[in-house]
Amino acid sequence: MQSQTIPPQGEPATARGTHPLEPLFHPRTIAVVGASPDGNAGFDFVRKIQAAGFKGRIYPVNPRAAPLLGLTAYPSISAIPDEVDFVIFATPAAVVPAAMEECVAKGVKLAHLFTARLSETGVPELAALERRIVEIARRGGVRILGSNGMGLYYPKEGISFRANYPKEPGDIGFISQSGGNAWEFVYRAALRGLRFSKVISYGNACDLNEADYLEYLAQDPETRVITAYIEGVRGGQRFVEALKLAAQVKPVVILKGGRTRAGARATASHTASLAGDHLVWEGLLRQAGALGAESLEELADLTVALRFFPKPGGRRAAALGGGGGGSVAAADACDEAGFLLPRLPGDIVEELKQLIPATWMMISNPIDNSAIGNPRAAARLQELAFRHEAFDFVLLELGVDSGLEEEQGVERMRQSVGWLIELQRESGRPTAFIVRSGDAREEWRRESVNRERERLVQAGMPVFPDIRRATRALSRVLRYWEERAGGMPS
Amino acid sequence: MQSQTIPPQGEPATARGTHPLEPLFHPRTIAVVGASPDGNAGFDFVRKIQAAGFKGRIYPVNPRAAPLLGLTAYPSISAIPDEVDFVIFATPAAVVPAAMEECVAKGVKLAHLFTARLSETGVPELAALERRIVEIARRGGVRILGSNGMGLYYPKEGISFRANYPKEPGDIGFISQSGGNAWEFVYRAALRGLRFSKVISYGNACDLNEADYLEYLAQDPETRVITAYIEGVRGGQRFVEALKLAAQVKPVVILKGGRTRAGARATASHTASLAGDHLVWEGLLRQAGALGAESLEELADLTVALRFFPKPGGRRAAALGGGGGGSVAAADACDEAGFLLPRLPGDIVEELKQLIPATWMMISNPIDNSAIGNPRAAARLQELAFRHEAFDFVLLELGVDSGLEEEQGVERMRQSVGWLIELQRESGRPTAFIVRSGDAREEWRRESVNRERERLVQAGMPVFPDIRRATRALSRVLRYWEERAGGMPS
Repeated sequence: MQSQTIPPQGEPATARGTHPLEPLFHPRTIAVVGASPDGNAGFDFVRKIQAAGFKGRIYPVNPRAAPLLGLTAYPSISAIPDEVDFVIFATPAAVVPAAMEECVAKGVKLAHLFTARLSETGVPELAALERRIVEIARRGGVRILGSNGMGLYYPKEGISFRANYPKEPGDIGFISQSGGNAWEFVYRAALRGLRFSKVISYGNACDLNEADYLEYLAQDPETRVITAYIEGVRGGQRFVEALKLAAQVKPVVILKGGRTRAGARATASHTASLAGDHLVWEGLLRQAGALGAESLEELADLTVALRFFPKPGGRRAAALGGGGGGSVAAADACDEAGFLLPRLPGDIVEELKQLIPATWMMISNPIDNSAIGNPRAAARLQELAFRHEAFDFVLLELGVDSGLEEEQGVERMRQSVGWLIELQRESGRPTAFIVRSGDAREEWRRESVNRERERLVQAGMPVFPDIRRATRALSRVLRYWEERAGGMPS
Repeated sequence: MQSQTIPPQGEPATARGTHPLEPLFHPRTIAVVGASPDGNAGFDFVRKIQAAGFKGRIYPVNPRAAPLLGLTAYPSISAIPDEVDFVIFATPAAVVPAAMEECVAKGVKLAHLFTARLSETGVPELAALERRIVEIARRGGVRILGSNGMGLYYPKEGISFRANYPKEPGDIGFISQSGGNAWEFVYRAALRGLRFSKVISYGNACDLNEADYLEYLAQDPETRVITAYIEGVRGGQRFVEALKLAAQVKPVVILKGGRTRAGARATASHTASLAGDHLVWEGLLRQAGALGAESLEELADLTVALRFFPKPGGRRAAALGGGGGGSVAAADACDEAGFLLPRLPGDIVEELKQLIPATWMMISNPIDNSAIGNPRAAARLQELAFRHEAFDFVLLELGVDSGLEEEQGVERMRQSVGWLIELQRESGRPTAFIVRSGDAREEWRRESVNRERERLVQAGMPVFPDIRRATRALSRVLRYWEERAGGMPS
């Protein structure tokens, strides 16, 4: 029945109407094949979906029909006395074909093969087994997510494969050929405020592949930015079309694994991918208007900039909050990123002369916080910089290393963050915050940094761990908006 | 009296015998001028020196001789009924000349001017005031550290300017023109195991300058690696000689502030420095055989590599511990850094076939931890990689994102770190660890990462926050050792 709405692989879907993958991601029922009470991988899938708040019905399947986590289990998919929309396979590969036949009979829409050790092994028999599984599924109209992937995280539907993922949905789509990169990216990006519409960890891409997911996310109204970790693509031309289509309608940022020869070799045993030539890849991204990242860190930086940094009117920065050395570093970073640091305009200088008659002449842009001395003057200067038309945006170093020398700094840091959030809100000025890692020997310091970062993030601010990562990402995103004469639609 | 042992500025000191600065750094008594019971900056210096465990006598000086922190205070330096070796000025600049005359009369060896708002203001009268202070001091044989600097951190002598610095001494020397960069660098480097012989935050360098400190650290038996943050140099040729001398006898790593035009402008108001042309600077470093860093992060990375990564026999790496995506990233990073990733040698493959008959063919180098499945096999494979002569060194990703999904991961992580430290010790193989930031929502996760990093660091392991920062720093340090046909003397 579902097969009527799903185009065979290779045929591009239209961007209009309901995308054929849409019904696949809204299961009313999920069966987990290979979930046993002994706490195996299938058990974990059940547990995490329960914890994520899935509203539908969950059916564990194991040979002895042993119940688990308060759920009745069944010995096979066929034995489930209900419709089954989504099946997660956490079984050895050998048992998949027979179970897939049952999926077909049952009218399953989507099968996620967490099951691995198929084509990525490079063993011809196992690659053939994978092809057989795909054939069974295709014939019966079942689509496959995987094999060798962590599957689907869709917080809005209460579907998750990871215990430490946020429950709140967001609007970043992420497709990842690596499960480990999905674990890391989603958790770390969440600390910087990014929340996800759908995360799809798709491994070997034996049926549905990066082109399908890109097409889907391109038209998905829940997704505003598409991010991806890709090792290799199947069906080059179709991927190119999907990428162009996606990049036309929303920002697309892709981290390519296997940029180098050694990296390309590593992709083969990981997800059976042919990494392809990196120069071709870079040309393709440029042509499509997508952004490339070179590391998970840069992928997060670019996404944070795209999502939380409103397009400023120009490249004139006011850099605040650093001490002397930090201000020099900010100036170097701005220059390298092609940002301008205008001198303080006359009216601000005039007010400075009143505020700090002894040291006004030492204050320039970047504004060296340690040279101001007087906290009231520092606050007033921040206010002026946030509001003055001489600047297009603000770079604000939170100064956790200077401010958290001793525990009494915690309260000052808290007040400062509150004041800065207020300033940004009142002025509406695009502002990026630099908040270094909270790694520390003392828990109060770790807690303070993580809490203040979280407050900034909750207030919608883009946060970066150091000034150069900030200026590089912001500069690339500014250029991106400039080339498209646009900015993030709100 | 001391003037006999101190060469006038500009005259190079010999690298033999006791360096003329040596007696300056071993004061028996410290006076802090401008220390009041109200908790001002001078009070803080007294408090931090007490907390650092200074064994000599401390004399606060304030006009009303108001006692503080259990110490008798005096109204002036002259009034102190003891010899005074070291004076810290935490007073307005205007009162320094008269007090400096008293220092001269008292036979003070070293005066630290925390006092700022002098030449860095760009105001001719204040620059002249600074010159007058220097003249008084020079005439009387008093040397000046500063002005506008945080001064001296010498943990072995119990001298410190920062409450969160380690009490344990170490063998890294750091001279920093920026106090804020000194705060940040020392604290963050300490989290990665670096401990300091002397840290000198010297600001405007109105008397003693970077050339003096470099010369001193070059011959200082307590210092094995010299690190520096420099904005501009005084007396170019003398600095060049000092740098060459220093780089001949120990590794020197320098972060230059003001690489760009905007950065150079910022150095002027920070420490009255002329930043100079960056290409000239880079040529100078190369010629002298010193290493340049572009950020405080890279300064720390290079120093960690120099200090904790024993010179391997070659560039053949075994990369362990990452999942699939992490292994691809490690391969890309190794390739970019010029490291080789040899295929697993035949004897290891043979043993793998026994250990994991179903998946042995998926394991290559980098070794994808997630593809092994069986923890005993994973441990055995680590053992083989640490010991096999096919590899020169090991890159080990600790996997905090994969391992700390839930709290039960904490104990496994602890066991894993113990085992890895043991393996490294038994094999003696040069090993670098990748431990990502412990930033997290949950305290147990923050604590686990910070504790396990600390254990690695206590065991003498080099730790880096991501694979690319690791491979870049290691590659540069390897080339450094190769060019000198040496390695860190132990």
